[in-house]
Amino acid sequence: MKYSVSDIIIKKRNGGKLSADEIGFFVEEYTKGEIPDYQAAALLMAIYFQHMDEEETFALTEAMKNSGDIVDLSNIKGIKVDKHSTGGVGDKITLIVAPIVAACGVPVAKMSGRGLGFTGGTIDKLESIEGFNTVLAPEDFHNQVNEIGIALIGQSGHIAPADKKLYALRDVTGTVPNLSLISSSIMSKKLAAGSDAILLDIKCGKGAFMETFDDAKALAETMCKIGESAGKRTVAVITDMSQPLGYAVGNSIEVEEAVDVLKGQKWPEDVVELSLYLAGIMIYLGGKANSAEEGRKMAEEVVKNGAAFEKFKEMVKRQGGNPTVIEGIQTEDGWTYPNMPASEFKNEIRAEKSGYICEINAGEIGNASQHTGAGRATKEDTIDHSAGISVVVNVGDYVEKGSLLATCYSNSEWKLEKASEEAAKAFSIGDEAPEVPKLIKATIGL
Amino acid sequence: MKYSVSDIIIKKRNGGKLSADEIGFFVEEYTKGEIPDYQAAALLMAIYFQHMDEEETFALTEAMKNSGDIVDLSNIKGIKVDKHSTGGVGDKITLIVAPIVAACGVPVAKMSGRGLGFTGGTIDKLESIEGFNTVLAPEDFHNQVNEIGIALIGQSGHIAPADKKLYALRDVTGTVPNLSLISSSIMSKKLAAGSDAILLDIKCGKGAFMETFDDAKALAETMCKIGESAGKRTVAVITDMSQPLGYAVGNSIEVEEAVDVLKGQKWPEDVVELSLYLAGIMIYLGGKANSAEEGRKMAEEVVKNGAAFEKFKEMVKRQGGNPTVIEGIQTEDGWTYPNMPASEFKNEIRAEKSGYICEINAGEIGNASQHTGAGRATKEDTIDHSAGISVVVNVGDYVEKGSLLATCYSNSEWKLEKASEEAAKAFSIGDEAPEVPKLIKATIGL
Repeated sequence: MKYSVSDIIIKKRNGGKLSADEIGFFVEEYTKGEIPDYQAAALLMAIYFQHMDEEETFALTEAMKNSGDIVDLSNIKGIKVDKHSTGGVGDKITLIVAPIVAACGVPVAKMSGRGLGFTGGTIDKLESIEGFNTVLAPEDFHNQVNEIGIALIGQSGHIAPADKKLYALRDVTGTVPNLSLISSSIMSKKLAAGSDAILLDIKCGKGAFMETFDDAKALAETMCKIGESAGKRTVAVITDMSQPLGYAVGNSIEVEEAVDVLKGQKWPEDVVELSLYLAGIMIYLGGKANSAEEGRKMAEEVVKNGAAFEKFKEMVKRQGGNPTVIEGIQTEDGWTYPNMPASEFKNEIRAEKSGYICEINAGEIGNASQHTGAGRATKEDTIDHSAGISVVVNVGDYVEKGSLLATCYSNSEWKLEKASEEAAKAFSIGDEAPEVPKLIKATIGL
Repeated sequence: MKYSVSDIIIKKRNGGKLSADEIGFFVEEYTKGEIPDYQAAALLMAIYFQHMDEEETFALTEAMKNSGDIVDLSNIKGIKVDKHSTGGVGDKITLIVAPIVAACGVPVAKMSGRGLGFTGGTIDKLESIEGFNTVLAPEDFHNQVNEIGIALIGQSGHIAPADKKLYALRDVTGTVPNLSLISSSIMSKKLAAGSDAILLDIKCGKGAFMETFDDAKALAETMCKIGESAGKRTVAVITDMSQPLGYAVGNSIEVEEAVDVLKGQKWPEDVVELSLYLAGIMIYLGGKANSAEEGRKMAEEVVKNGAAFEKFKEMVKRQGGNPTVIEGIQTEDGWTYPNMPASEFKNEIRAEKSGYICEINAGEIGNASQHTGAGRATKEDTIDHSAGISVVVNVGDYVEKGSLLATCYSNSEWKLEKASEEAAKAFSIGDEAPEVPKLIKATIGL
């Protein structure tokens, strides 16, 4: 081999700086299986303690990006802007933002993952819509975006296999939480995905990977630098994930909430606000507005005039979905969707006393959601599209004893009981009005 | 499994203290192959950075000791004292000390390794003697010690397999140099070897594992604590290994030097001094003297009166060796052994200028010795018993240009050339008389 792997481990262990060539060698040989997992694990733990500097982080990202396919979106006209969220509870923003920016003329050619977690990924959520097809051949994908401006499909091909292999190893060796490893993992995939610009939504709080603002900011800054160093305009927004985003946490219920907002419903306020804010930036990055503020106004307009919802429906139809299921029925309390998947069982969580909602622990709601059947614990698990949790209060609300806090849905009574118990623990009610967490905490790189 | 291995890794990574139960679980499951190498590698690197405290180190030692056979020497009468050297260049002390203390009535039931390194191990050296058998069944081994007071054989059985497996992993993952890992590795084997007391010779200097006195002292103290906590009297001596010990570095030539000293020859002075010093402690630990000083006087006496050499010869005969090869012929310059293995080729290294010998880099002499064929690089290598290097000067000696510094021996002209070039680089000659390193630097636990 070109380098001694032991020497590379010892160099990093001793606080040395690895060259781009050494990092490239390690990633390539590890991906090929020429370097064993135990040496990779030792190196990852050495990186955990000794860190990587910017140059090393860029080199690691580049090497992982180059370990697999690089998506070619050059057949699609216009500036393609990718959006990535580090993942939170109730995050259905892509479902709202994508049709909004498409309606404003920014091409949306988005490939999303399924993944493990509290709920399914964007693709799982879309599959709640009867008939919706998330698998398109590259040519059909490009044609659809060129013709109607939007396509949301599952990740295909062989994107950053080095990251996949290294992430699986990090997961079982206590080497996940390191800035360079996290940021290169995300950015290697984003850079391989073929867009021209990238908007990152970095979640921060108890339901997120980064619990503190400082950690989230450091991650945002590192990822922006990685993106810019690779020649891609990259903007990061740090947003709150101390309580679930919006009301719905699940799959079909999140699609319903997204559709509500696309139809112009003014609530949940946090979902509306974040969607318009991010859409504004994407429209600006896509070259259709002179500023994010102008972009936001355009976003508000296409929601108001119905163009955004029409764009969503157009995509559903084009990808084989039944558009009538998202038409719904309007009532005094909002819209209902009788033809979307619904669970057999439900359970209400009610306030045990009167007072202010001081905390809705997003992580605990997320875990409870997974346990209703809405998320996968292992790759082999199947998703129950109708399962999930609908939280109907926000931090700062005053509730009377016995009033409804949330409803849990599942097709398994046993799962429902377990999840309801967990979800109930996520709520804290106190006598003093708490400080309401700020939704949008910082924007970096704009 | 009883514990989550990831949780154990993360606990140590975060600076936590592992319980004896967690350490025992890890060692047991890893040895069984139930915990993969990559998790062990990550834990080892976390230990490298976060260290283990005394209790953790004791628990690791105990768990590794218990992973295999515990040798039972209870059939052998008397207090059995084991001796262990952390390994140096030209270290033939066991060959001298063992017959001395046996001649003083301390039973020597020693099992030695072969190992990799600069030269063979004690067992390889003894196999330079025609016919010498290093494999004895336990009953024969016990009988021999009870009858003649001494037996030196190869390590048999299944001693501390956990250490063997972990050491192999440490060797390729940059996790060798950690006090707890080094000391538990040595002590787990020593504690399993069945002796009543342990004398450790901790080498310190450029030819040794511990380069500085402080590191050697920390290792010595930790190992003594481990030994005492396991209920075994343990003494450690820190000795110089900045220059080779004695003149001979090899296998047959080291046996010859050992025999010279057993016959009462007064040089090499460092070999004579260290042998008597360590023998004194062993005789004391073995209960045959009231102090190490008294033990030393007894050691001097059995060398002077020939009892020590007779004991060595008795062992050689009993283990099937030809005793005539060590009788030798006395000349004006000392003894020669025409029937010991001799190399076909030799090469002299001479002083390139006049001056003081400022340094004889023990590590470089050791590497050169290995390259003559005297040591193994891999387990599969065979040893050339006659190969090696005879260094005839010490640090502090004044030499004239052209005078002899060392002679290299090998049965391969190609190896000889390579090794001679390396060996020549080990010598530094200067105009100022250097400080002569102190041979015995500290004694701990006496």
